[in-house]
Amino acid sequence: MDLTNTAPPVEEQVALMAARALDENALRTIFTEARTANGFLPGPVTREQLTAAIELAELGPTSANTLPVRYVFVETPEAKERLKPALSPGNLDKTMAAPVTAIVAADLLFYENIARTFPTRPEMANNFIGEGKADFVRTFARDNALLQMGYFIIALRALGLDCGAMGGFDKPKVDAEFFPDGRFITLYLINIGYGDPTKSFPRLPRLAPAEIATFV
Amino acid sequence: MDLTNTAPPVEEQVALMAARALDENALRTIFTEARTANGFLPGPVTREQLTAAIELAELGPTSANTLPVRYVFVETPEAKERLKPALSPGNLDKTMAAPVTAIVAADLLFYENIARTFPTRPEMANNFIGEGKADFVRTFARDNALLQMGYFIIALRALGLDCGAMGGFDKPKVDAEFFPDGRFITLYLINIGYGDPTKSFPRLPRLAPAEIATFV
Repeated sequence: MDLTNTAPPVEEQVALMAARALDENALRTIFTEARTANGFLPGPVTREQLTAAIELAELGPTSANTLPVRYVFVETPEAKERLKPALSPGNLDKTMAAPVTAIVAADLLFYENIARTFPTRPEMANNFIGEGKADFVRTFARDNALLQMGYFIIALRALGLDCGAMGGFDKPKVDAEFFPDGRFITLYLINIGYGDPTKSFPRLPRLAPAEIATFV
Repeated sequence: MDLTNTAPPVEEQVALMAARALDENALRTIFTEARTANGFLPGPVTREQLTAAIELAELGPTSANTLPVRYVFVETPEAKERLKPALSPGNLDKTMAAPVTAIVAADLLFYENIARTFPTRPEMANNFIGEGKADFVRTFARDNALLQMGYFIIALRALGLDCGAMGGFDKPKVDAEFFPDGRFITLYLINIGYGDPTKSFPRLPRLAPAEIATFV
């Protein structure tokens, strides 16, 4: 009999863990009432808010903690003009008017940080170095940066902000303008601010659980 | 003067929106204290919980509301045995012992639902049909399913659960065993349950905001 074992019974531990669940209000903020913004109120978005959002999102899991996502926050009218030629007509006005637009990108040299971000197995970096690895590195960077973008969207909402992600733009043009050396590849743009409720569309239908999941 | 305009002033609207922000407890649950689980308590995970998680995650945005993510929840010992040959040694024991393992996949025929999920522009489906489109369709399906996986991980945490996502396994083997007709492609596995805190590793270092973001 181990008298030093003071861990509570499993049922108690599970009950404590289940109690971590978010309440209805919090679920509304990040999921059930969160909506893609198609226009924004003139409220300001601060660098402190954006930094808080990327720090929260950075805590989400990535493969081998590789953390490949990178952000360029386009705030100034001058920088918005650089983005303009890449925007599709349907995204143009709302993007030019948004308080800030994030360029979400992946760093193809993410593995240079592995010694620091995965110190238990720094040799993992070698998996990404060498001839014939370019496609693997690119897919790995994109996959993990997209996961991180999912965390980032929820983090923005968790801080009370709204966002409008857009895939409809000329990615090579954004790459050429903002990442001319080829190290970073653009994935999405996200307009960020406080959504103007008069400009939201009705929520589009979702697929039913039975259409997207099976249990085996 | 428009006497019918009863909208509150912008400052009030922004204050109400900022007040949607999550409190510290909720942020702890989904980000700041959430950790990848490397082992689980024997607490049960119900189909109701998993269904609630996929319904929350399904509300997150995807390009043109295409919603390509699909899940197979591997619950039974028999189904776990089908997964076993694809697992890497480091992921084997914890996956076999997890209450449930989700196979996260992308549906390459996601565009068949566009008429229903994007009824305002059903003709969008044509963008994905025709010769030479296979790579575009595959990338589009993967990209959006990975975004949705990001939402799903946060949704599981928001419901009080823990998860351990794994990329280290033989994807073609999982595809061959669970998706032999080639319609779905496996992206990640996620073990789900209540994490055993004695089996967690220390949190790995993250990159600093200045390393991942610039403001222009």
